[in-house]
Amino acid sequence: MNPAPLSGLYAPSLSLLTDLYQVTMAYGYWQQGLQDREAVFHLYFRKAPFGGGYAVAAGLAYAVDLLENLRFSDDDLAYLGSLKSATGGAMFPQAFLDYLRDLKFTCDVDAVAEGTVVFGNEPLLRVQGPLLQAQLVETALLTLVNFQTLIATKASRIREAAGSDTVLEFGLRRAQGVDGGLSASRAAYLGGVDATSNVLAGQRFNIPVKGTHAHSWVMAFEDEPTAFAAYANAFPDDSVFLVDTYDTLEGVRHAISVAREMRANGHELGGIRLDSGDLAYLSREARALLNEAGFEKVRIVASNDLEENLITSLKLQGARIDTWGIGTQLVTAYDQPALGGVYKLAALRKPDDSGWDFTIKLSEQLAKTSIPGILQVRRYESEKGQPRADMLYNVAEPLPERLTIIDPLDATRRRSVRPEAAYRELLEPIFRRGKLVHQLPTLEESRARAHREVLSLDPSIRRFLNPHVYPVGLEESLNTFRTSLILEKRPLRPA
Amino acid sequence: MNPAPLSGLYAPSLSLLTDLYQVTMAYGYWQQGLQDREAVFHLYFRKAPFGGGYAVAAGLAYAVDLLENLRFSDDDLAYLGSLKSATGGAMFPQAFLDYLRDLKFTCDVDAVAEGTVVFGNEPLLRVQGPLLQAQLVETALLTLVNFQTLIATKASRIREAAGSDTVLEFGLRRAQGVDGGLSASRAAYLGGVDATSNVLAGQRFNIPVKGTHAHSWVMAFEDEPTAFAAYANAFPDDSVFLVDTYDTLEGVRHAISVAREMRANGHELGGIRLDSGDLAYLSREARALLNEAGFEKVRIVASNDLEENLITSLKLQGARIDTWGIGTQLVTAYDQPALGGVYKLAALRKPDDSGWDFTIKLSEQLAKTSIPGILQVRRYESEKGQPRADMLYNVAEPLPERLTIIDPLDATRRRSVRPEAAYRELLEPIFRRGKLVHQLPTLEESRARAHREVLSLDPSIRRFLNPHVYPVGLEESLNTFRTSLILEKRPLRPA
Repeated sequence: MNPAPLSGLYAPSLSLLTDLYQVTMAYGYWQQGLQDREAVFHLYFRKAPFGGGYAVAAGLAYAVDLLENLRFSDDDLAYLGSLKSATGGAMFPQAFLDYLRDLKFTCDVDAVAEGTVVFGNEPLLRVQGPLLQAQLVETALLTLVNFQTLIATKASRIREAAGSDTVLEFGLRRAQGVDGGLSASRAAYLGGVDATSNVLAGQRFNIPVKGTHAHSWVMAFEDEPTAFAAYANAFPDDSVFLVDTYDTLEGVRHAISVAREMRANGHELGGIRLDSGDLAYLSREARALLNEAGFEKVRIVASNDLEENLITSLKLQGARIDTWGIGTQLVTAYDQPALGGVYKLAALRKPDDSGWDFTIKLSEQLAKTSIPGILQVRRYESEKGQPRADMLYNVAEPLPERLTIIDPLDATRRRSVRPEAAYRELLEPIFRRGKLVHQLPTLEESRARAHREVLSLDPSIRRFLNPHVYPVGLEESLNTFRTSLILEKRPLRPA
Repeated sequence: MNPAPLSGLYAPSLSLLTDLYQVTMAYGYWQQGLQDREAVFHLYFRKAPFGGGYAVAAGLAYAVDLLENLRFSDDDLAYLGSLKSATGGAMFPQAFLDYLRDLKFTCDVDAVAEGTVVFGNEPLLRVQGPLLQAQLVETALLTLVNFQTLIATKASRIREAAGSDTVLEFGLRRAQGVDGGLSASRAAYLGGVDATSNVLAGQRFNIPVKGTHAHSWVMAFEDEPTAFAAYANAFPDDSVFLVDTYDTLEGVRHAISVAREMRANGHELGGIRLDSGDLAYLSREARALLNEAGFEKVRIVASNDLEENLITSLKLQGARIDTWGIGTQLVTAYDQPALGGVYKLAALRKPDDSGWDFTIKLSEQLAKTSIPGILQVRRYESEKGQPRADMLYNVAEPLPERLTIIDPLDATRRRSVRPEAAYRELLEPIFRRGKLVHQLPTLEESRARAHREVLSLDPSIRRFLNPHVYPVGLEESLNTFRTSLILEKRPLRPA
């Protein structure tokens, strides 16, 4: 057996994109007769990535696609049927595989819209429905939402640093696999970059694509001016010359001489690209050479392991860069390549159907202890639409008249809510009983939302270093209940 | 337009998995009549990842699959035809799209086998053939080989730290997209882990799959002993209980009480898993409790952001861990999430067909200057098969009788080669004129190769901190030629 690894990949089924333990637990629940017990899970991260003050939610469109197409194919079932237990028997009996064959996704899903600004401990996604199903989708949901939220957030930070400059994403060659590239291009666009080099992403997601030429283009010709002239011949109105194959400033001079010929023929050089060396110095020198020669409008594109802190530093140094090309650092989220999103059980219908049992996962660290309930996130906003504080509350319990928000890590930090304060609820119905009930926004709409929401945050929350902590808390009665549940579940150890 | 992002992904065509500049250059070469000029590109990285002394080559099976299926579908061409230039006209004329429609991959490809130990500056892949084609495949080859080589290398380091302990990979939920998980599972297995939790990887690549249960399993039952007993009922001979949902050592005691019941029924508990807290302390305490109760064979599985340095440290602290579960740190290569592999033009057939022009890309840093020629890597080995030094040489030029290997970064570091020294050539023919001429090994065979090759390295090269630098150099005449080419291409600046 030596199958081609890419051929036919993903189509037709992604139902096995999961950890084996989801399937073993599914079997266990089925065997115990617990498969249809109603359960509620929340998907959330604990801490915004990159030491930042916020994240930009992304990945929901992928999650919806996956859930809509969740079914086990004959191939999937044959594979599960082939798995053996330690004693050599089948891991799963045929009756369970038959159950999986007939399984349809019937859960309710609520989620925050892609492009929404989110904070630690807030559910991005809530799945409510039969325990077996709601558990089964954990891994895939985490894979899709964790990564795209991470990249959308990184892109929004890079956008913050670049201001109104153009930002291009071209990380595909350093991406973590085919769709480490593809879904990164999508999330980066959602988070604020202007275009990608990734043609497949351009095709699939209607993202603007950009690209010029590589060093090899220059090396394929007798000399650099010949190479530039040949490229200008192919793309008379879209040329950006990469000038550092041999010597950067010499390259700029060659670009200028070709730009003069272009102008004589009625065309204008679009830009030059710097890909190595001291970008602050070289961009200033290049700008001076270009301006001196009458090419004030030729743009300077820079690349080379750039990220938000380097962009900020280059701007402080007076770099004259118009367009930022971002690769590795963006598509791999180099400084924090994973978002630690988790998916935790928070409620289970009582066996006698008399209400809910709310569940909690303890930890030695309070920050890692889960939040019980069926949670909604209420965002209070100022009159100008600036987010002021987020309140997590349990929709299965009545809200008290006077609302107080309590920091889950420090119960002495509290905020009262004015009764007339404007708010919106972040989790929206996406699936009801397995049926998609939500018209997903286009990628452009999600991108516009991300832009709007990030800009609505106070700059102190957006800054890179030691950002102000946006207030997220539990509604007081939820906090009280959670504390009592921790005390109940945690053994009282001797001192 | 709001297409479902996963549905139909990858099938039928991955030909657009590329940077736009590959297509613009392709058009430029075609327009200049240079499309069939014979060219040679090398894919290599400059520095082994993670501060280590070596890398484990991986990704070739994916690259072969991609190249064998390289053709532009009608959809691909329609998309390229829809792209506009800055002035609003079509970016590519129809005649060029017709050319792409008929394009067949006709290059020669030579590559090092998956599982081979490789070092900086050594070509992992050499593509020789029509300039347009050899250029066009750059991005996809880099995406596939960069990431899988990175992960296989990380896995081999984790294997080094774990010794003969069992190592499980279960990083899917934190992976960078669907196939950031899928291809990571494959590469991790190739590099030395024993099994994965990723069911899709198990199915596609025939990798052993493993899994137990999550915290939610425990939370779904009235109490922990009931949850453990229910799981043991479903998997009487394959149970590993996760013991830290509420309190770890209390969880171990509950596991022991259920293990006693299991034993009374003729079954044995497989193991317990620790997923938080002080793993050194908790594993020792758990081991003592288990042994005291007569469960010396129950294995202790540990997880929680583990990687090679933590494993080493835990072992030094006397941790009693039998099985290491590795997630995020492995599948994202957390401490260095990208391998900086590049793809550089190194030779072009002269226009009059009278031989080769060898090409070079300069850089301010000598380490980033490319190596001209049509390169092969010759590995000299001791009588016991231990690698001694690697020599890069140009197969288009005759080799001198007396061979000297020269460090490309320090020409005073030289090694002479004994005429009788045993060697092997690392680059093997994979494609000839676009036809696959190589029987790819199975994943198991590549994994066995990786294991054998890593162990054949001197331990000083395998160590994590400041490893010994394995000698890789240029054959003397190649080094002399390269130096003259640098001097020729680099302008002599005034002091």
